[in-house]
Amino acid sequence: MIEVIAFDGDDTLWHTESVFELTQARFREMLSPWCSPEDIDRELLAHEIANLEVFGYGIKGFTLSMIETAIELSGGRVGADTIREIIEAGKAMVAHPVELLDEVEDTIEVLRADHRLLIVTKGDLFDQESKVARSGLADLFDGVEIVSEKDEGTYRRILKEHRVEPEHFLMVGNSVRSDVLPVLSVGGHAAHVPYRVTWAHELVETPAEVAGLFHVLSSIAEVPALVRELSVRS
Amino acid sequence: MIEVIAFDGDDTLWHTESVFELTQARFREMLSPWCSPEDIDRELLAHEIANLEVFGYGIKGFTLSMIETAIELSGGRVGADTIREIIEAGKAMVAHPVELLDEVEDTIEVLRADHRLLIVTKGDLFDQESKVARSGLADLFDGVEIVSEKDEGTYRRILKEHRVEPEHFLMVGNSVRSDVLPVLSVGGHAAHVPYRVTWAHELVETPAEVAGLFHVLSSIAEVPALVRELSVRS
Repeated sequence: MIEVIAFDGDDTLWHTESVFELTQARFREMLSPWCSPEDIDRELLAHEIANLEVFGYGIKGFTLSMIETAIELSGGRVGADTIREIIEAGKAMVAHPVELLDEVEDTIEVLRADHRLLIVTKGDLFDQESKVARSGLADLFDGVEIVSEKDEGTYRRILKEHRVEPEHFLMVGNSVRSDVLPVLSVGGHAAHVPYRVTWAHELVETPAEVAGLFHVLSSIAEVPALVRELSVRS
Repeated sequence: MIEVIAFDGDDTLWHTESVFELTQARFREMLSPWCSPEDIDRELLAHEIANLEVFGYGIKGFTLSMIETAIELSGGRVGADTIREIIEAGKAMVAHPVELLDEVEDTIEVLRADHRLLIVTKGDLFDQESKVARSGLADLFDGVEIVSEKDEGTYRRILKEHRVEPEHFLMVGNSVRSDVLPVLSVGGHAAHVPYRVTWAHELVETPAEVAGLFHVLSSIAEVPALVRELSVRS
């Protein structure tokens, strides 16, 4: 029996990567006098990953990474106007409306009748709180956990805090790295609902030994059927 | 009887504002070709406060505010080298060693024998988690709450989560605005331990009607005596 179902936020409940994509397209335009789109993407990703250790996930770190990339790829010739435009692009990302993925609301309504529901989302506290609030979903969930990293320790803490055994816990998310592998490691169930695009840093090869141990769904709307199936099996 | 004692982090358990001060002094140097120190401080504070609504508290937002200020005060003439230097200054702040205030460790050791202890700190999740970890204090506390804003709702949630009635709760911190007023509003006890400097945004006039309702201490080392006094009185 599944008692608690936890959902990732970004690109599982609401669109996020598409906002980053739009900004990155604008950033490529800004740097087009100096560099090819491919070089820009590669250099930006390198800065983003290097900065994760210093700044963590989120829009502010992404914005600072764009500024560093612009300075580097222009050989220091990028103008203050472009830097200002990059910061404005970062602010526009923060202010971007939160758009739910298809079928999210109906699915959550169905599931909450018989299960405790959580949001477990990774990233910047301020940004994620704002997105949860603007999503209009907060009241439908029994708890919201905003974490800086989704690893085994994080999931163990959440299971303990919400008093649920791993075999009664299902995590649903778009990242195999963050939403699936650490959940399987602590003995929980996991459903992978891929998003249209995945940030390069979240891409992992699925280890062969776990390939059959989690569930791949094409939409969040398939979660209720999965929950019924897991209940019959156990 | 006080059951739970919560401590603010920045400038209550460990030095923070002094790191901002050092960076701001460096920033004044960088902009000295364009502007007086007074104008720099005033313009930076204006950007910081305007950006709180977009970026929240913390080093990343501060760094972006410095960049905006540099572009504005230089009339767009600031060079990429200076922008890079500002970002490096931000990274250096993140990496700055966490230095405890005097008497913190001894006081915590004394208090934890008879009380549940919490850290309630405001700011960037990633940055605050890192500071808690590097402070070496985490194991001495029963819980760590990192929040985006310290208002009445935040304290109500924390009291509920830790199952303590307001009259058995004491908050200790350096900010009247964040650590005292909202705690009094929900019916708890509060002790103000001023730090050497207070960020302008945290400065408030203490309303006359609450002036006698909280305790002003000159050092965290005075907390155990206050706790004894509160227990005798009740």
